[in-house]
Amino acid sequence: MTRTVYVNGDYVAEDQATVSVFDRGFLMADGVYEVVSVLGGKLIDFDGHMVRLKRSLSELAITNPLEDAAYLDAHRKLIAENGITDGMIYLQVTRGNPGDRDFAYPPADTVPTVVMFTQSKPGLADAPAAKTGWKVISVEDLRWGRRDIKTVQLLYPSMAKMEAKARGADDAWMVEDGRVTEGTSNNAYIVKNGTIITRELSHDILHGITRAAVLRFAAEAQMKVEERSFTIAEAQEADEAFVTSASAFVMPVVQIDGATVGDGSVGPVAARLREIYLEETMKTAI
Amino acid sequence: MTRTVYVNGDYVAEDQATVSVFDRGFLMADGVYEVVSVLGGKLIDFDGHMVRLKRSLSELAITNPLEDAAYLDAHRKLIAENGITDGMIYLQVTRGNPGDRDFAYPPADTVPTVVMFTQSKPGLADAPAAKTGWKVISVEDLRWGRRDIKTVQLLYPSMAKMEAKARGADDAWMVEDGRVTEGTSNNAYIVKNGTIITRELSHDILHGITRAAVLRFAAEAQMKVEERSFTIAEAQEADEAFVTSASAFVMPVVQIDGATVGDGSVGPVAARLREIYLEETMKTAI
Repeated sequence: MTRTVYVNGDYVAEDQATVSVFDRGFLMADGVYEVVSVLGGKLIDFDGHMVRLKRSLSELAITNPLEDAAYLDAHRKLIAENGITDGMIYLQVTRGNPGDRDFAYPPADTVPTVVMFTQSKPGLADAPAAKTGWKVISVEDLRWGRRDIKTVQLLYPSMAKMEAKARGADDAWMVEDGRVTEGTSNNAYIVKNGTIITRELSHDILHGITRAAVLRFAAEAQMKVEERSFTIAEAQEADEAFVTSASAFVMPVVQIDGATVGDGSVGPVAARLREIYLEETMKTAI
Repeated sequence: MTRTVYVNGDYVAEDQATVSVFDRGFLMADGVYEVVSVLGGKLIDFDGHMVRLKRSLSELAITNPLEDAAYLDAHRKLIAENGITDGMIYLQVTRGNPGDRDFAYPPADTVPTVVMFTQSKPGLADAPAAKTGWKVISVEDLRWGRRDIKTVQLLYPSMAKMEAKARGADDAWMVEDGRVTEGTSNNAYIVKNGTIITRELSHDILHGITRAAVLRFAAEAQMKVEERSFTIAEAQEADEAFVTSASAFVMPVVQIDGATVGDGSVGPVAARLREIYLEETMKTAI
């Protein structure tokens, strides 16, 4: 089946979905993105992703080209057109196509480029890996300094993902100045003596939408949360570890750089948080 | 006039020059580039740029899709088709279009995307700024850690260029751990007591093709060269400052963060190096 893809207001067949070679997204990685999960045909945490999208655009002085309602309408239309039950909607906004290349931004009236497409993932919430957990490796964090802006500068996370695969792992945790920042496309957590520990928000990490929801649910469930950074050694000695992201939800981590975390099985905190997250977030799915 | 642009072997009108929205260059900044200058219809330092292109591709495990002769042929065809006397040829190679989005690299047989286009700049070698010099500001270097790979992750240099413009300057010098790395798209130099000082090669800076040529010509002209990093304060106290790049050649810098360098006019070393570079490099232009 050929997907229908959204490109600047048009709904086109995926093999016809193109952008200009002069698009700033292609020439300069001058664009931002969001990924919203779909479960049972409904959008998860859509409002949170819209808030972050607008923050990313604002930080880069890119004019937000669409109203929230228009983004929502396009998301729903893509779900319907492509018959998505479970999966993701990918959304990218770039500074647009000025018709030539220059380091200086184009005139402010340059129209941003908006692209959206679906990825069907039947049974997304029942990923088998959630039962067994991920193995992660650590790599040095070589990304740029504004990871709080969700830009398409994903080459290094992509390289880190490949390094993980080459070493028989599922993902990589990035380490800067000896402390874990985050995973390649997820926030990282450990659990020690009942306390959930995750790095505090700053320019060093993505401000995860799922992170915010999970920490809120954890607090509501009377779990203790400590926002601070931690080392790989501390993570290896923790009782549990896990990551959160919009499409992996809450994913247990059972091995870090070859060392087993806890008893090597999915821990109760991660399991409980995944359950709560999926249950609670479905209540506000739209 | 409509430019003719090269896209994956085809020569197309610029408004028809597109890539898939699934191209890794658009979604993940997973691509590299080169810019070759054209003077009098001939290519400057073409071989050097080809060597660096292949190194960049190799560092990212992207298969080089074309022979040098094919790149050269395309460069020459674009010069002829677009009637370029002076200007630049931009070349970008990405990991290609796998037809969907994933952090993991696509299969090794995915065909890389190759895009080339011309930028006409009549009188490129006679830029008036070379007579008066640039003003630069300093900004923190927030780029990723592998600046020796010439990737399209140019958002931060682009932001720095805009910051420079906003502050009435021509460019920004990036500073890391208190020492200058390089300009937004050029290598940085100072001259003190007749010695040319420029940062040593490492992962921290681009290995400039023009840098290599200029240092070679400087040595041949018996000028002293010291490869080491320097601070903004040291640069402000220097006798001269300048930058080099494929399209600015040797460009004097006469002001740094508001402080006048030397007497504020173009210094003799920068002027002489520009002259030598243009003269010598034209001898090997093809």
